[in-house]
Amino acid sequence: MKLASLADGRDGKLVVVSRDLKQAAAVPKIAGTLQQAMDDWDEKASRLNEVYELLNRGEWPDAFGLEPEQCGAPLPRAFQWLDGSAYVNHVELVRKARGAEMPENFWTDPLMYQGVSDNLLGPCDDVHVASEDWGIDFEAEVVVLTDDVPMGVSPEQAASHIKLLTLVNDVSLRNLIPAELGKGFGFLQSKPASAFAPVVVTPDELGDAWQDNKVHLPLRVELNNELFGQPNCGVDMTFDFARLISHAAMTRHLGAGTLLGSGTISNTDRSSGSCCLAEQRMLEIIEAGEAQTPFLRFGDHVRIEMLDAKGKSVFGAIDQRICQYEADA
Amino acid sequence: MKLASLADGRDGKLVVVSRDLKQAAAVPKIAGTLQQAMDDWDEKASRLNEVYELLNRGEWPDAFGLEPEQCGAPLPRAFQWLDGSAYVNHVELVRKARGAEMPENFWTDPLMYQGVSDNLLGPCDDVHVASEDWGIDFEAEVVVLTDDVPMGVSPEQAASHIKLLTLVNDVSLRNLIPAELGKGFGFLQSKPASAFAPVVVTPDELGDAWQDNKVHLPLRVELNNELFGQPNCGVDMTFDFARLISHAAMTRHLGAGTLLGSGTISNTDRSSGSCCLAEQRMLEIIEAGEAQTPFLRFGDHVRIEMLDAKGKSVFGAIDQRICQYEADA
Repeated sequence: MKLASLADGRDGKLVVVSRDLKQAAAVPKIAGTLQQAMDDWDEKASRLNEVYELLNRGEWPDAFGLEPEQCGAPLPRAFQWLDGSAYVNHVELVRKARGAEMPENFWTDPLMYQGVSDNLLGPCDDVHVASEDWGIDFEAEVVVLTDDVPMGVSPEQAASHIKLLTLVNDVSLRNLIPAELGKGFGFLQSKPASAFAPVVVTPDELGDAWQDNKVHLPLRVELNNELFGQPNCGVDMTFDFARLISHAAMTRHLGAGTLLGSGTISNTDRSSGSCCLAEQRMLEIIEAGEAQTPFLRFGDHVRIEMLDAKGKSVFGAIDQRICQYEADA
Repeated sequence: MKLASLADGRDGKLVVVSRDLKQAAAVPKIAGTLQQAMDDWDEKASRLNEVYELLNRGEWPDAFGLEPEQCGAPLPRAFQWLDGSAYVNHVELVRKARGAEMPENFWTDPLMYQGVSDNLLGPCDDVHVASEDWGIDFEAEVVVLTDDVPMGVSPEQAASHIKLLTLVNDVSLRNLIPAELGKGFGFLQSKPASAFAPVVVTPDELGDAWQDNKVHLPLRVELNNELFGQPNCGVDMTFDFARLISHAAMTRHLGAGTLLGSGTISNTDRSSGSCCLAEQRMLEIIEAGEAQTPFLRFGDHVRIEMLDAKGKSVFGAIDQRICQYEADA
């Protein structure tokens, strides 16, 4: 099943989306918003799936054409957005570039932070940043959405709580990170609002590509209409999504609609490119002593998309421009 | 005006509360939840205030008695919970106890982290923690609730976005903090769900005690029915709430209903006691070389309350027991 939220008010308007992403159906009698559907998932999902089947067969009476520009983030405001860093080789690389050893327990204890979730960006929303000097970067990732997860859940138990998947651009302000992390309390100013793909899908939509609580497909990133990277999300993912959920839930219940991200996709085989500028810059620093690839400039264009084995877009594309933000005087 | 949320479903049920905290009025025709009221604050606040005036005069027809046990957190799930550390002398003390210098810019650049907000505790909810070994502590703080705050807001502009105030117990797992912060991504497992006072109030309810975007009243903490501390929230607050909002909004818009905390209240005059066990332990370490005060044990009882100049409770009390959590097998 595939779902999206039309940009409409603070919480969007839930629609069921056809497998080919072309048609949509409003479902106000089932749930007005995706959050409402997640709050009562088992019952709502089966009803939404009936609409999905009819829509795919062309038998839903009020289907309408869907354009990604109409979509907000699937959860335009969410109660929890947690982002892991599950591709540990990426973390190791970042450390190596600045000459620091990575602690051995980074291979066994996930990195994760709590991100801002009250104003999430839709797939075609501009990214507004006040200054290019902040080192604007994208991070292309996979995200899962959970139902209610009890505190203390094991990885084995956690797997069944993965209800939906999508893509995220975890926008990062690289030049603000060192000073902010140096203060010891983690990311805040250096991680502004993230942007999400237009469509969330149930794991069964991925077929054989959903294995071991990982997505075994490449994630394509284009920068200004040129391919920048396409690493495979199922390769070198040290912590799978069930493990990440268990980590997050050690001391808390996770409420329905929790978003949990994988961290930047990264393969040790560098020939597939990178899912963020920072990684490319680190490789340049290690190889040549300095970074050549600049951070994003106003007007730059980032596109993030996942194609299945047949070349069809699974979630639709995140397709954004970077723009200058000007605060009111 | 004073408001609360009865524990009822995921988002509570908004009620207007009389100034003396004894009577309440349901207001479904104005707003079903506090989040709905905050989403459209200017219009809703004036209508809610009419009910408040009638309730205080004993003229609201369907008033009913309010018990704090009926209340959930004012926002049982919130889209954003940010916690500052505005009493910098507390931070300096923590550093001193472990022999570390505090960077000079801690006096000018606020510490702040993003906390879990999808399952906030009501004032009388038990605090469930799996292990006493995690070093369970309370942190008594003041919190403001904002309406929509635009990115890049100045401290001067930010002041007008403070719509409501309340109290929080920012539960902390002290023994998990060093390893977690050592990883560099900030708090996650070491900061479980926080608990909130039953009632939120508009700043005018504080009268002269609301000055310079600070609350000039002592915050009383009782541990197992004995006074533990009563530092004054208006003293030694290095960053006022407007400054904290401006810091939070540097790279993001803040959505309506954002909760922003002051951090543990702490006065350099130690005679008023502390608002968390960690501070008391630090003072013991500095004085005697080791901590005598233990962290919380299962069965311990924490009460946090603010009284006005006449000795009346402003927000009602946070009044909780610490209990052992057992995960499902």
